[in-house]
Amino acid sequence: MSEQCKFLLDDRQIPTVWTNILPFLPEPMAPPLHPQTGAPLGPQDLAPIFPMELIEQEFSPKAEIDIPGEILDIYRLWRATPLYRARRLEKALDTPAHIYYKYEGTSPAGSHKPNTAVAQAYYNKRAGVRRLATETGAGQWGSALSLACKLFGLESTVYMVRVSYDQKPYRRMMMHAWGAEVFASPSPQTNAGRAVLAAAPDSPGSLGIAISEAVEDAATHGDTNYSLGSVLNHVLLHQTVIGQETRLQMRMAGEEPDVVIGCFGGGSNFGGLALPYLQDRLAGKGPRIVAVEPAACPSLTQGSFRYDYGDTAKLTPLVKMYTLGHDFVPPGIHAGGLRYHGASPLLSHLADMGHIEARAYPQTPVFDAALQFAATEGILAAPEAAHAIRAAIDEAVSAREAGLSSTIVFCLSGHGHFDLSAYEQYRAGELLDQSYKATA
Amino acid sequence: MSEQCKFLLDDRQIPTVWTNILPFLPEPMAPPLHPQTGAPLGPQDLAPIFPMELIEQEFSPKAEIDIPGEILDIYRLWRATPLYRARRLEKALDTPAHIYYKYEGTSPAGSHKPNTAVAQAYYNKRAGVRRLATETGAGQWGSALSLACKLFGLESTVYMVRVSYDQKPYRRMMMHAWGAEVFASPSPQTNAGRAVLAAAPDSPGSLGIAISEAVEDAATHGDTNYSLGSVLNHVLLHQTVIGQETRLQMRMAGEEPDVVIGCFGGGSNFGGLALPYLQDRLAGKGPRIVAVEPAACPSLTQGSFRYDYGDTAKLTPLVKMYTLGHDFVPPGIHAGGLRYHGASPLLSHLADMGHIEARAYPQTPVFDAALQFAATEGILAAPEAAHAIRAAIDEAVSAREAGLSSTIVFCLSGHGHFDLSAYEQYRAGELLDQSYKATA
Repeated sequence: MSEQCKFLLDDRQIPTVWTNILPFLPEPMAPPLHPQTGAPLGPQDLAPIFPMELIEQEFSPKAEIDIPGEILDIYRLWRATPLYRARRLEKALDTPAHIYYKYEGTSPAGSHKPNTAVAQAYYNKRAGVRRLATETGAGQWGSALSLACKLFGLESTVYMVRVSYDQKPYRRMMMHAWGAEVFASPSPQTNAGRAVLAAAPDSPGSLGIAISEAVEDAATHGDTNYSLGSVLNHVLLHQTVIGQETRLQMRMAGEEPDVVIGCFGGGSNFGGLALPYLQDRLAGKGPRIVAVEPAACPSLTQGSFRYDYGDTAKLTPLVKMYTLGHDFVPPGIHAGGLRYHGASPLLSHLADMGHIEARAYPQTPVFDAALQFAATEGILAAPEAAHAIRAAIDEAVSAREAGLSSTIVFCLSGHGHFDLSAYEQYRAGELLDQSYKATA
Repeated sequence: MSEQCKFLLDDRQIPTVWTNILPFLPEPMAPPLHPQTGAPLGPQDLAPIFPMELIEQEFSPKAEIDIPGEILDIYRLWRATPLYRARRLEKALDTPAHIYYKYEGTSPAGSHKPNTAVAQAYYNKRAGVRRLATETGAGQWGSALSLACKLFGLESTVYMVRVSYDQKPYRRMMMHAWGAEVFASPSPQTNAGRAVLAAAPDSPGSLGIAISEAVEDAATHGDTNYSLGSVLNHVLLHQTVIGQETRLQMRMAGEEPDVVIGCFGGGSNFGGLALPYLQDRLAGKGPRIVAVEPAACPSLTQGSFRYDYGDTAKLTPLVKMYTLGHDFVPPGIHAGGLRYHGASPLLSHLADMGHIEARAYPQTPVFDAALQFAATEGILAAPEAAHAIRAAIDEAVSAREAGLSSTIVFCLSGHGHFDLSAYEQYRAGELLDQSYKATA
């Protein structure tokens, strides 16, 4: 019998706090600015769309924040998620490297997104909110929020990027099954959507546009708040359960990572895994940290670190981040969850300090890696997560070529059950890698 | 913080044997008969389509059969599967009953089917077979066998029942991603398929027809064997890992079941969970055992216990089982995995002895239960598995009405990620319950 390939935690080992890197930053982040006045933002400026407890978390000076029991009750439905050692993939690659992956696809919505969706629904429920409005790219976030709202008795409205709405009907049906109302974005429901449709009736949409719609919906309805699935500090905070669990599980495996890898859209699964290790780096002892983005939307590798809007219609605050420009509309690649023009300001700040390496891949090598993974480890990964697989394989091959061992950990952020048409296109040789065209 | 809701086993607790009920039967099963001669079948009669090690298992007198290490290596990719206590569902039902479910949807193919697919691929590989041919209803079995063949380097050909082929394109794509060749059945690939198409060009297909096609494919190609996903003794044997794990996990929970429930098509997930408990019943001390089938294909509740063919074209042996007749074509319900005219001969034998209660539900109450489960436990169940949810809820409501506690365990055999169009139809009120029309 072979050696252990799976590291599980019991319910008592699920983290009971979220860990906050903010108080450990050697230099504070640049403050968000008011979209109209350009003045630094106060908590009250965010109150029309967020509950106060989440606003406090956004700027919290505490090193740890307790996870409320009602959130833990729901986390326990699927957490702790398993950490796997990819022994079959290692063997296929004939590499001395040890490859581990943290699999977040076991949640009911199929990704890491419920980690923050559940927390956000909880705090909004406590604040007396009746409905949450949000955007979704590939549909992972929208389905996570639909699930969380259903579990807490809230209503949910999801603006789903048009290209994904068309590509992934099952994601839409999944949101419906959990009671959500879903619109293709740009939609005729909002001023922001109508403006885009007037200028470009065939717009494939973008996360930037869908965010404008959801923010407008929340800002114009008194009983409705807005909910964001990535980018913001409180979102990444909630995701730190991933990295905390991984740390425990790597100790069970008796190893420490040399390199930690995550795919990167807004930064939430990446940050969830990496932030505890980034905190180590700030203390002078962490592993290499690698962010993997699509060549079609390369905010970290080709964007610039500057103040920009989080959305297309300039309704959100100005935040300092790596950005391709708030009016950048990426081509309709299958990794819809990575089609965001910007990057988490917190992770941008850490990248600017030199703590994060970034790389970008076109779609073809990413799907090639996904199929190799499916043929060895069995799991069909989401196209987003497959970016991390590609980088992990490349790291393992480099280790083989250098004749050195290396301990690699990556986040397999979700399954690809709703992305099979992309696999089918790849197999048929129909997946064209669109070149990067910056508009800003 | 609430009480425990999840019971996990570590890799060392995965069963290392399959448990075989055959030597414990008080009366032996009626022997299978040759389809042409009507004489009792010998092992050599099965050799053209099955490897000898599986044929031996089919008739084995041993109480336990060791699971080879190479199979365990793959089981460990997702086993042991979790056992959950459905505390949130219990609360919603306001029931004193304790409801547990064994969740087999965490396998890469999304159901319990890989438990036997991996074993069958292994023994066929050892026997020097190059390709496996099989049928699939909803696609769960076909995708499981595609995965297993990919992991062992075998080719696979899947005849997929036409109605599911059309309803579930993603299941087909999933099989493709694992390298399978997939045909809609009835297909023009085989004599059996061509005969059905000639008589009924618009045939929705059935498992009986698809089995004929796969058996013919295997019988007419020297390098190809046939693989069946349910019904046979060796298939149910491999599935006993479900019940063995459940037994351990129920001990962790400190409870013994009063009633054990599984949905019933050919009988494989049902048997996997129930056989260890049926063995207890043979020793005079087991729980109630409830099989749940669709009203559209009620082999146990409305069929008769007699010799019949396993397929439409009469290529398989005659076996004594509960059957609706080998030419029965059930209506195209969404629980495609339960559309089989017969029932496992072993489980039929045990049902005939009075050890299994059977009940049948139409689709509407089944989807109603599935949505209640999704709203409380989060998981979107396969329509097949939702039959078990329906029965578990009914048992829990009965317990409440009787003012008695009851410990209920059911098998949640798979997720419904590829069945969301069925949920969408149900929500839209478009799910019509077709009445049962026997043709035999």
